Amino acid sequence: MHHVTDTLLSLFVVFAAAQLCGGLARRLRLPGVVGEILAGALIGPYALGWIDATQIAAGMPLDVLAEIGVVLLLFSVGLETRLEDLRRVGKAAFLVGVLGVMLPFLLGAVWAHGQGYAWSRALFIAAAFVATSAGITARVLQELGALQRIESRVILGAAVIDDILAMLLLGVVVSLQGGGGLDVAHLALVLAGAVGFVAVIGLGGARLMRRHAATLDRRRDPESLLGLVLALCLGLAWVSTLFGLAAIIGAFLAGMIASETRQQHMLEQQTRPLLALLTPFFFVVTGSKLDLSQFASTDALIMLAVVTAIAVVSKLLGGFLGALTLGRRAATLVGFGMVPRGEVGVVVASLGLAAGVFDERIYALIVAMSLLTAMLTPPILAALLRRDRPAEAAS
Amino acid sequence: MHHVTDTLLSLFVVFAAAQLCGGLARRLRLPGVVGEILAGALIGPYALGWIDATQIAAGMPLDVLAEIGVVLLLFSVGLETRLEDLRRVGKAAFLVGVLGVMLPFLLGAVWAHGQGYAWSRALFIAAAFVATSAGITARVLQELGALQRIESRVILGAAVIDDILAMLLLGVVVSLQGGGGLDVAHLALVLAGAVGFVAVIGLGGARLMRRHAATLDRRRDPESLLGLVLALCLGLAWVSTLFGLAAIIGAFLAGMIASETRQQHMLEQQTRPLLALLTPFFFVVTGSKLDLSQFASTDALIMLAVVTAIAVVSKLLGGFLGALTLGRRAATLVGFGMVPRGEVGVVVASLGLAAGVFDERIYALIVAMSLLTAMLTPPILAALLRRDRPAEAAS
Repeated sequence: MHHVTDTLLSLFVVFAAAQLCGGLARRLRLPGVVGEILAGALIGPYALGWIDATQIAAGMPLDVLAEIGVVLLLFSVGLETRLEDLRRVGKAAFLVGVLGVMLPFLLGAVWAHGQGYAWSRALFIAAAFVATSAGITARVLQELGALQRIESRVILGAAVIDDILAMLLLGVVVSLQGGGGLDVAHLALVLAGAVGFVAVIGLGGARLMRRHAATLDRRRDPESLLGLVLALCLGLAWVSTLFGLAAIIGAFLAGMIASETRQQHMLEQQTRPLLALLTPFFFVVTGSKLDLSQFASTDALIMLAVVTAIAVVSKLLGGFLGALTLGRRAATLVGFGMVPRGEVGVVVASLGLAAGVFDERIYALIVAMSLLTAMLTPPILAALLRRDRPAEAAS
Repeated sequence: MHHVTDTLLSLFVVFAAAQLCGGLARRLRLPGVVGEILAGALIGPYALGWIDATQIAAGMPLDVLAEIGVVLLLFSVGLETRLEDLRRVGKAAFLVGVLGVMLPFLLGAVWAHGQGYAWSRALFIAAAFVATSAGITARVLQELGALQRIESRVILGAAVIDDILAMLLLGVVVSLQGGGGLDVAHLALVLAGAVGFVAVIGLGGARLMRRHAATLDRRRDPESLLGLVLALCLGLAWVSTLFGLAAIIGAFLAGMIASETRQQHMLEQQTRPLLALLTPFFFVVTGSKLDLSQFASTDALIMLAVVTAIAVVSKLLGGFLGALTLGRRAATLVGFGMVPRGEVGVVVASLGLAAGVFDERIYALIVAMSLLTAMLTPPILAALLRRDRPAEAAS
């Protein structure tokens, strides 16, 4: 029974640290998520070591709980998002998604090439600058009750585009490493699959659900409908990974589908305790991967600052330019909303390390940059949202 | 990213199977838990193999989710239980606990010795007949809204006693294997520790919580109190394993403590979605351990029937005699409520196998018996509860 004790201890430590640091952050008028990521950095293997590296490795219980946490988070965000609302901001979201991928990719590639890496490796490194972590921003927007704002919808729509493009880009740079050139037909197929999945599930699912809402209403106990939509959420999260997309894209679509039922409000209520239990695991596990000991020298620290600045500015600019039709204030909010790389950057860096393309130094840089963007952005978003509070709240 | 796909697939398969089979069971007017356990047996490694043996091994994600599920289940049962109510049935619960341990232990030992095992081994085998799985019965009682009945309180109180005694008994039989005799002083210390933990946390915690309920009421958002009590739940679950008790004992106590807050009703509401998501993992994983292929011959099947009959009758009789002061109907319900062995029997059998005391045949027998008692009891409990519905509902 020894492993039960160990397991429960690690669950308790992670959850209690998140409660404590999240609460502290909120007292300082910061988003709770900042406290939770810091909690992870604090108790993680590179600081206090209360949870060790094997416990947060891919496929281990804490990692799986983290994955469930972020899947449920995006599911709940989907629950608060209507397809109609997304469609209305479609053009801006598309521009934000495309520019928010292109600028970081270009600037990242130029920087990496300037560091002496050949173009094929530089492009792989640049791919780690690209993908936005929708989880971080979604949590901040939800925490501050801002999901109904037009900027939030643009960010969410752009996050879907962003994930599709980032996935394609990763496919391209991986195949470039082999030196065998690009298989354009294959890439077109991958793109068609991903876009098809999003379109069929997003549009078709919502329509189907609206038609059958009455049938679902007849289900007597509230847990029965919840069980059904949670199965849908897990199922679509799984299927979306089959199309090369992040699990959270499927979860987000599942939430949007479920938001078409008449019990959408009840489902939102029921999802909240699930988030309270499970999302802290995501943010703590994300934060626990931060290893600042690598940046003890001034040179290394300056390098980290430069990389982080490139990542922030390029994404901010891409989002800002893409959303400029909404006005400069809104565009600024959208731009910052796209900045966090979080766990997505960590995943790309891990792939690069495993493929032998990243050396230890680049790996540590990209991971630290990803996590720093995740920690720096929430306070800025919160300040922007609070400043704008009296202004334009859509719907 | 391959492992993410695999993980999400297994989560989806387990959860969807539980939804489907649980729903079917309810349509047949059976408790949903029966369907969930059967779902596990069906998709498990010994039947369809949709989840394999490594996925449900101790410490793996599905096993950890199962553990969290049963911990939350007993936490929620604790939330619906007031310390006062337990105290009022203390005497009956104590008798049920003691007799419900003694009779199965004696009968199990006699049977095992009759099978040709030396007494020291026979006593270890008998220990696997002892412990009740509170999870199965608690779920049925909760599903049928019967937790406020006096019989339910007796069962819950007895389950705590049962776990303490079973833990001691296991300590005794393990030390007997060494042939070094009993260390009575050590056992007394273990007993004192376990009883002390339950008494201090149960009595002291509830009192403390009652005194500080007003402070907690001041917490503004509902998720903040939930986070606090979930941390308490995970923390006490962990500590109770340090005292050699099951994690669910600590979780049950945490629930009882939280039930003293004024927002007890809100906490109950919030816990329900958590149960909807996580308890299915417990029941499916439990069921997936059933390997009936071992019982293909008539002889083996008869043997399984005999062992199961001994386990059922001895526990039923112990509970019945212990609760006889409540009347024969109530005593019957209490008796059946104590019958399920479930995952606890599986754990003892695994310990026996690891210690080299159980051979493969006894191991398979005990595991199958434990799971059969878990599957057979819920329909009987449901029938007894439905028959009595108009009668004596306490409080």
